[in-house]
Amino acid sequence: MHRILVIHGPNLNLLGTRQPEIYGTSGLAEIDAALDKVAREKHAEIRSVQSNSEGVIIDALHDARSWADGVIINAGAYTHYSHAIADAVAAVNLPAVEVHLSNIYAREEWRRHSLLAPVVKGSICGLGWRGYVLAAQALLELLDDR
Amino acid sequence: MHRILVIHGPNLNLLGTRQPEIYGTSGLAEIDAALDKVAREKHAEIRSVQSNSEGVIIDALHDARSWADGVIINAGAYTHYSHAIADAVAAVNLPAVEVHLSNIYAREEWRRHSLLAPVVKGSICGLGWRGYVLAAQALLELLDDR
Amino acid sequence: MHRILVIHGPNLNLLGTRQPEIYGTSGLAEIDAALDKVAREKHAEIRSVQSNSEGVIIDALHDARSWADGVIINAGAYTHYSHAIADAVAAVNLPAVEVHLSNIYAREEWRRHSLLAPVVKGSICGLGWRGYVLAAQALLELLDDR
Amino acid sequence: MHRILVIHGPNLNLLGTRQPEIYGTSGLAEIDAALDKVAREKHAEIRSVQSNSEGVIIDALHDARSWADGVIINAGAYTHYSHAIADAVAAVNLPAVEVHLSNIYAREEWRRHSLLAPVVKGSICGLGWRGYVLAAQALLELLDDR
Amino acid sequence: MHRILVIHGPNLNLLGTRQPEIYGTSGLAEIDAALDKVAREKHAEIRSVQSNSEGVIIDALHDARSWADGVIINAGAYTHYSHAIADAVAAVNLPAVEVHLSNIYAREEWRRHSLLAPVVKGSICGLGWRGYVLAAQALLELLDDR
Amino acid sequence: MHRILVIHGPNLNLLGTRQPEIYGTSGLAEIDAALDKVAREKHAEIRSVQSNSEGVIIDALHDARSWADGVIINAGAYTHYSHAIADAVAAVNLPAVEVHLSNIYAREEWRRHSLLAPVVKGSICGLGWRGYVLAAQALLELLDDR
Amino acid sequence: MHRILVIHGPNLNLLGTRQPEIYGTSGLAEIDAALDKVAREKHAEIRSVQSNSEGVIIDALHDARSWADGVIINAGAYTHYSHAIADAVAAVNLPAVEVHLSNIYAREEWRRHSLLAPVVKGSICGLGWRGYVLAAQALLELLDDR
Amino acid sequence: MHRILVIHGPNLNLLGTRQPEIYGTSGLAEIDAALDKVAREKHAEIRSVQSNSEGVIIDALHDARSWADGVIINAGAYTHYSHAIADAVAAVNLPAVEVHLSNIYAREEWRRHSLLAPVVKGSICGLGWRGYVLAAQALLELLDDR
Amino acid sequence: MHRILVIHGPNLNLLGTRQPEIYGTSGLAEIDAALDKVAREKHAEIRSVQSNSEGVIIDALHDARSWADGVIINAGAYTHYSHAIADAVAAVNLPAVEVHLSNIYAREEWRRHSLLAPVVKGSICGLGWRGYVLAAQALLELLDDR
Amino acid sequence: MHRILVIHGPNLNLLGTRQPEIYGTSGLAEIDAALDKVAREKHAEIRSVQSNSEGVIIDALHDARSWADGVIINAGAYTHYSHAIADAVAAVNLPAVEVHLSNIYAREEWRRHSLLAPVVKGSICGLGWRGYVLAAQALLELLDDR
Amino acid sequence: MHRILVIHGPNLNLLGTRQPEIYGTSGLAEIDAALDKVAREKHAEIRSVQSNSEGVIIDALHDARSWADGVIINAGAYTHYSHAIADAVAAVNLPAVEVHLSNIYAREEWRRHSLLAPVVKGSICGLGWRGYVLAAQALLELLDDR
Amino acid sequence: MHRILVIHGPNLNLLGTRQPEIYGTSGLAEIDAALDKVAREKHAEIRSVQSNSEGVIIDALHDARSWADGVIINAGAYTHYSHAIADAVAAVNLPAVEVHLSNIYAREEWRRHSLLAPVVKGSICGLGWRGYVLAAQALLELLDDR
Repeated sequence: MHRILVIHGPNLNLLGTRQPEIYGTSGLAEIDAALDKVAREKHAEIRSVQSNSEGVIIDALHDARSWADGVIINAGAYTHYSHAIADAVAAVNLPAVEVHLSNIYAREEWRRHSLLAPVVKGSICGLGWRGYVLAAQALLELLDDR
Repeated sequence: MHRILVIHGPNLNLLGTRQPEIYGTSGLAEIDAALDKVAREKHAEIRSVQSNSEGVIIDALHDARSWADGVIINAGAYTHYSHAIADAVAAVNLPAVEVHLSNIYAREEWRRHSLLAPVVKGSICGLGWRGYVLAAQALLELLDDR
Repeated sequence: MHRILVIHGPNLNLLGTRQPEIYGTSGLAEIDAALDKVAREKHAEIRSVQSNSEGVIIDALHDARSWADGVIINAGAYTHYSHAIADAVAAVNLPAVEVHLSNIYAREEWRRHSLLAPVVKGSICGLGWRGYVLAAQALLELLDDR
Repeated sequence: MHRILVIHGPNLNLLGTRQPEIYGTSGLAEIDAALDKVAREKHAEIRSVQSNSEGVIIDALHDARSWADGVIINAGAYTHYSHAIADAVAAVNLPAVEVHLSNIYAREEWRRHSLLAPVVKGSICGLGWRGYVLAAQALLELLDDR
Repeated sequence: MHRILVIHGPNLNLLGTRQPEIYGTSGLAEIDAALDKVAREKHAEIRSVQSNSEGVIIDALHDARSWADGVIINAGAYTHYSHAIADAVAAVNLPAVEVHLSNIYAREEWRRHSLLAPVVKGSICGLGWRGYVLAAQALLELLDDR
Repeated sequence: MHRILVIHGPNLNLLGTRQPEIYGTSGLAEIDAALDKVAREKHAEIRSVQSNSEGVIIDALHDARSWADGVIINAGAYTHYSHAIADAVAAVNLPAVEVHLSNIYAREEWRRHSLLAPVVKGSICGLGWRGYVLAAQALLELLDDR
Repeated sequence: MHRILVIHGPNLNLLGTRQPEIYGTSGLAEIDAALDKVAREKHAEIRSVQSNSEGVIIDALHDARSWADGVIINAGAYTHYSHAIADAVAAVNLPAVEVHLSNIYAREEWRRHSLLAPVVKGSICGLGWRGYVLAAQALLELLDDR
Repeated sequence: MHRILVIHGPNLNLLGTRQPEIYGTSGLAEIDAALDKVAREKHAEIRSVQSNSEGVIIDALHDARSWADGVIINAGAYTHYSHAIADAVAAVNLPAVEVHLSNIYAREEWRRHSLLAPVVKGSICGLGWRGYVLAAQALLELLDDR
Repeated sequence: MHRILVIHGPNLNLLGTRQPEIYGTSGLAEIDAALDKVAREKHAEIRSVQSNSEGVIIDALHDARSWADGVIINAGAYTHYSHAIADAVAAVNLPAVEVHLSNIYAREEWRRHSLLAPVVKGSICGLGWRGYVLAAQALLELLDDR
Repeated sequence: MHRILVIHGPNLNLLGTRQPEIYGTSGLAEIDAALDKVAREKHAEIRSVQSNSEGVIIDALHDARSWADGVIINAGAYTHYSHAIADAVAAVNLPAVEVHLSNIYAREEWRRHSLLAPVVKGSICGLGWRGYVLAAQALLELLDDR
Repeated sequence: MHRILVIHGPNLNLLGTRQPEIYGTSGLAEIDAALDKVAREKHAEIRSVQSNSEGVIIDALHDARSWADGVIINAGAYTHYSHAIADAVAAVNLPAVEVHLSNIYAREEWRRHSLLAPVVKGSICGLGWRGYVLAAQALLELLDDR
Repeated sequence: MHRILVIHGPNLNLLGTRQPEIYGTSGLAEIDAALDKVAREKHAEIRSVQSNSEGVIIDALHDARSWADGVIINAGAYTHYSHAIADAVAAVNLPAVEVHLSNIYAREEWRRHSLLAPVVKGSICGLGWRGYVLAAQALLELLDDR
């Protein structure tokens, strides 16, 4: 059975109420429920963590070395300047998929550059909560292929 | 029944033989077959076009206004400098998803900037042929939601 | 009798239906009709070509060496990255006026730099379909002056 | 009857004698005469002001709020660094057309960027004194259309 | 009664002892006392939080949604690279004023760009501890006006 | 008794009528009245000058050496390119506070850089007409402290 | 017997008549004749293609996979922005030599950067028609060495 | 007796297992042991702290004001963007030496710029665990010299 | 008899009192006296103008066409952004020498670029009031040589 | 009889032993022998100089004015920053061809810009020792044509 | 017995007298004496060379191939622009450590980039003459480890 | 008696024959003769050195510490990239004046930035051989003043 860590970065706890015209009306609970459904269908386990703290996110990634087979990560604004989180993703050496709810490459200049890109396998953005579901499907299939 | 146009841009006809360490060993035919399977499952129609010519790609996008409900586009290298294709995607005003086989945001500097990003709904990259399948799923679900 | 080639670049065939808040509601046929009116008044001949293909536009410019006395060119998005079209305008060595329907210098950063500027006599932008008429008037008067 | 303010910026009082290979041999008086002819034909009034002083140009623009329906402006070198004049054009909120005698987009790097572009309706450059006549025609037609 | 959250960012706990030639000799306690005086005068409540941790600052902003009417924020060095805090200020959607003790726009290049600027109502800098008092006055008056 | 020179730069004479969504509906007279009120309360004298001319503003600053104890300056668009005014502020060597009605650091790129910042004591922006009142309070208190 | 594809890019069909002070007075036919002479001497076959169309050039490169042992390419202006042609050269994986008639590294800024450089074996520029002959000699010797 | 604080920044807890081709096979315990040996030889005390959290690192630096005579700091990825840590090093005003296991100036562009450089006495990089030992020797000798 | 116009730009009227550590303690009157001495020795006439206004400086340059044989210009801060003054120097077409009291190329970044440089014959900077005397000597000798 | 100076710049004396995967296994002696063969065939004289010193290379170029008809130059790393050597090539005014063993335009960023390009007739790079032979052939033919 | 070449670059012969506030008061002789002491303790040989000439430094590096096991290099100002010396260090292929007396990463912008960084094993800077001693210790230990 | 070292940098030995349209027709001997005349008039001694070698120029500057009171330096192309020569001028700590025959600030971009500017007292450029004479006069007067 494959196990996947899902990381929800800063301000994602406000999802559903925060700028819904950008981030949609689904809250984090609904996204986790949708991921759970994928997990059950695929006989996998998906555990999610949300934190506004860079250090906590790094700790969670380190911890995943002992139990997870893959990572789905939406590092929120940290995506764009936290070299420490990017270093952590590289250091734990698990296949990872980056997800963004909004189309970050079509927004402010600084959101168009992801520091995680060079250390993840791929990324999905702009497709809202579906992006997480697609990422989970892809990651689980990739783990099956190995 | 939803209809989707899939655009395969320049050099993608060489897929499977071209730099397989980057682009994988699946050829275009296998990708189209996988998309066909999605289409049958979802009772949709997916037509794909491959061209090495910018003008032909623009013409295909214009033509889609008369029959398609959405677009999946991998414009290859044109992604990064063809403002004309980006203008065409914006002009035809159909929901579009951008796909890249490789993780373009982790390669050469020039491949990290997509001119299509501001005119598509979202993008999927680095997940190989699966990216097309995920894009088709997402696009068809989005069309169902409307 | 002076003869003028008018080049309509990529996506201009959609004129009138494409983003009318930017490009106006006049179609290409109406622009060509307005140019025809100028041609008749000035006893000139104005032939227009529309293509979405860079190569076809270059071929049309080369061809103009054998019959035209001047060029009016709206190269659309190619204006901003097609050094090949700019080289062609320089190579055919006919007086040319650049026209843009919208005020390109007030839009996205990339639209504010025209590669054609160094090889044309002058340019008119932001004045909609009238820009073509003014360009034709100016070009025909310039040809008379020679 | 439409009324138009024409602003001639710094060094334009030397027109005709100043670098004629760039700016032509017509003096300001000839340009104003040509504009007068347009005014008479169109039953309009065109008043022109020349100043080498940024403050005087701003004052003239402010003053135009009480009598003019449109503005033709060639701000000379101020075009490229006077945010104050650009702010004034935006503040007076009259339709404006920018004119340049020479093809500024084909000259020194600093002349290729106009601060007025975002606040005017359109621009005409490189067509010598004819540019003013074309601008007046276009502006008067635009005013008629409203 | 209006309630205001005051955020003191990293290293501000050292105020009074840290580089007094730049930051002055008043400590945080004195600033809070001055703010308290304003609060009493204006029948308002002002609560202040100091933290060196980005995550704690984001949490405090999120928490303010349930009790505060406005925010005064001096995010210290985070001002210049924490897109996560800026996203948090935007997400909580309370009127905010940015304060800096020193004149950040007259110091090192990197201190001259505030990521908070686009998400706050206004900013006061270079006026030492008085800046906080002025910010509180302004914010309370603005809240009264609504 | 402290005396303060207030400088209102280019286009500020249009205040109240000019783009009120940015600059508010208070005119210059109302701002001067509010400053007068502060002056009376603080037993100070505040004289204000408005000019659209860079040279006149420099002359006013030079003149202030003979009568004023401090300067409040909103140099409008000159803020961003007039090194001559910045040199003048430095040369007259009076404590100065920069004020902007709008939040200049949240607007166009060019408005985010103030040439005055390195030569003033501090700045207040985005707080509308209140910014002037706060600046006068702060400046008068600073003068008292000396 | 070695076979070489020679690609002549956009505007090279005008060679001999186009800006002879830059490109020389030899036409394409004379260059092909000189290459033919080399081919006969070296018992090789050299086939040349000229096109103004990016897509046609890519198609010709793809086609070369089935018959050619090496490529000589002068992609004209496409050299400087066609990532698609550069991708094609890399994809077909044949030894290639880049040729330019003029010394592109001594001309306009944009001509000083070749996108082909990273995917070709070497380049020859500024030596006019002789560049092609030298390229053919070098390429045939390199093929002999293998 | 001199006391030194050693700060090990984010991801350094993985040392020995993380990308050993870059960071070597020595773990943090071995480095601390080597430092202990230096401490004993020099009759000094060396206390080390590891944290993945920016705030915790700042707190540790502040705390050092009450007990330490110098600082050795390897802030990991924070080196390159944490102005808050750099401000903290400057604020605590203790002699500091920056250490990096790898040769950061020979790696990715972003690793070549250290924000700590302007606030430390010197730096040692690329010499693996020996760098810490050398830093301790140098720092203790410098403290002896005072 | 040669006649020379000397232009003293903005803030130079404060010379002697303004930042004497940069600009020296000689006032404008002393400089003009030193120039007068040169004039008398060389049987020349030297007239100087000081203004803080860009427009007045341009007018003085235009006026010089009718009486002067050469120009010495210290445009103060305008040196670095007044394209209008530079255009005026070019337009009047008199031999000009640029003078700066301080070594502008060793000060702030923005003072290191002179817009006048391309339109003057030469420049002298960093040599204080002597720079004017040397410039006058050089200019008069150059006029003698013609 | 034509005479050619060949300049081998810094580190080229190590050729054959230095990084052979980049620079090949031929030593300088072999290159000079190959050039000698061309010289004998073409009844020319080719003298080569190697130096690691910029000054010696400049002296050799100056000296060539008295005996040589052309120059082949591989200035090694000096190619990219020695404006003094480039000035010397321009000053001696002999036809010159630039040669590089490796494809410098496909290597580190700094190697992609040659300061010699604007002052030589043409360049050959990436073709190893053959580049010298081709350069000699081309240069001798060019000298014959004059 | 290990042998080490120490290179002292331009202006280092003035050490002790040159800007002692930056470079300290120890002369080159004292540094060489300190190095000698290390050599004797470690039974190694350390030979030092000082030159102001780039060519001589390159020659010394080439020469080291025949006798030395490692290199300590302080290339002075050449560090920042001599690609030729960097190429030489790479070409001789000996382990090298870069030393700077001052903290170059905390000084002028141009001193913050070392061309040697990518070709040396590590670097030590800002620790004065001790940097050389530490570099020798580290280098000799590294050689022992091999 | 004051003694001055004059340094003539690379390629200046060709003066009079090298590109006379830029550098004039006076040779180095004539310049030295003119300087000699000044020396005799002022009872000073002026010794000049010409070298194409950076190292020799640095040595000459170091040597000047023992005999000269001031330096006139035209470092030719080294002006623009030799940080080592600039460091030497700063290190020897003698008053220096920079001279350039041509108006370097009006030529190629790279010639517009002098590395010597921050370490010399002032500079004179564009005034041909007279520049040296003026520099000597100024320097000798400055030495008299001390």
